[in-house]
Amino acid sequence: MSNNGKITTAFSMSLDGFVAGPNEDFQQLFAWMMGGDTDYALKIGENEHKLKISTESVKMYENAINTTGALVAGRRLYELTQGWGGHHPIGAPVIVVTHRPRPEWVQNDWPVTFVTDGLQSAIEQAREIAGGKSVAIASATIAQQCLNAGLLDEIHIDLVPFLLGDGVRLFEYLKVAPVALGDPHVSVGQGVTHLTYSIKK
Amino acid sequence: MSNNGKITTAFSMSLDGFVAGPNEDFQQLFAWMMGGDTDYALKIGENEHKLKISTESVKMYENAINTTGALVAGRRLYELTQGWGGHHPIGAPVIVVTHRPRPEWVQNDWPVTFVTDGLQSAIEQAREIAGGKSVAIASATIAQQCLNAGLLDEIHIDLVPFLLGDGVRLFEYLKVAPVALGDPHVSVGQGVTHLTYSIKK
Repeated sequence: MSNNGKITTAFSMSLDGFVAGPNEDFQQLFAWMMGGDTDYALKIGENEHKLKISTESVKMYENAINTTGALVAGRRLYELTQGWGGHHPIGAPVIVVTHRPRPEWVQNDWPVTFVTDGLQSAIEQAREIAGGKSVAIASATIAQQCLNAGLLDEIHIDLVPFLLGDGVRLFEYLKVAPVALGDPHVSVGQGVTHLTYSIKK
Repeated sequence: MSNNGKITTAFSMSLDGFVAGPNEDFQQLFAWMMGGDTDYALKIGENEHKLKISTESVKMYENAINTTGALVAGRRLYELTQGWGGHHPIGAPVIVVTHRPRPEWVQNDWPVTFVTDGLQSAIEQAREIAGGKSVAIASATIAQQCLNAGLLDEIHIDLVPFLLGDGVRLFEYLKVAPVALGDPHVSVGQGVTHLTYSIKK
């Protein structure tokens, strides 16, 4: 897949459409990352995340790491993950859309930019930082805003075999429906089905 | 796949989880039935439905026709489809869960049974009629009731590449979450991805 500066987004989603469970529970959504038969180490900064995933999921990660040039996140997600400890698992710099100053706990050598003048500006800066690679939207609310603004080119779903019943839906507050997508690129993992959809414009 | 009297359900569902669009629009949900490259005629009673689908979708239909012994539908769906003109496209007898008498327009030679003493009784009668083949639930509300009652064994989703934004969700009013599913059987059609999930019990 070519990735010419496109705007994409990726989420683990339950079959009933949730990207976070009730009480922000991610146990089922991320179970596939320890549910496969192949050891895989995501090395980020000084940290190493040891996963057990299928070889198909390894290919998916390698592709994401190679093609992602920048990530855009909301302030809430950035604080919830404590800035992913400084380095996002996908290994790309993070652009945080916010109205407030940089948190004090953010260290100077972390690859992060705080943008206070809106989504459009954040996307433009992310595109510049990505330098031809793709920009990945990490927060559901920002993905929804991009979808509504016609900015999103691709949606990647790691579809997990659970019904959560309640939580945070990925596709909510959609103002532009119906949205037609292309046929997905499908890859079957263990505990997950990877689906990559282009958005028709 | 073996089908030893199991209870299953099958729906065309948009990526954002809708099995009917706003205003009960099915245009996008059923687009794949005319969006493939292979002519396929569903012959039911005196009627013939001419579809254009992928060879993968043909296999899916043939499997459904061979393995389905009875269908269970709600009164609303049965009336909305005018009893599928007497014969459901899958070619199996229909059991209608209802509180009211048989509609006058239903003809005597149609393979349909009206059950007025509840869901459990309808499922039992459907199982008897199916004779070892599977029972397919055709209405979303009844599928939800079966799921909540622990009666459902399998969920088949024809996942279509659209975001509808609003309409009727397949997975709503779930009382038993989280529900763990098995890894799906995946088959990639044209304009549709067929996913068959077993329900873990």
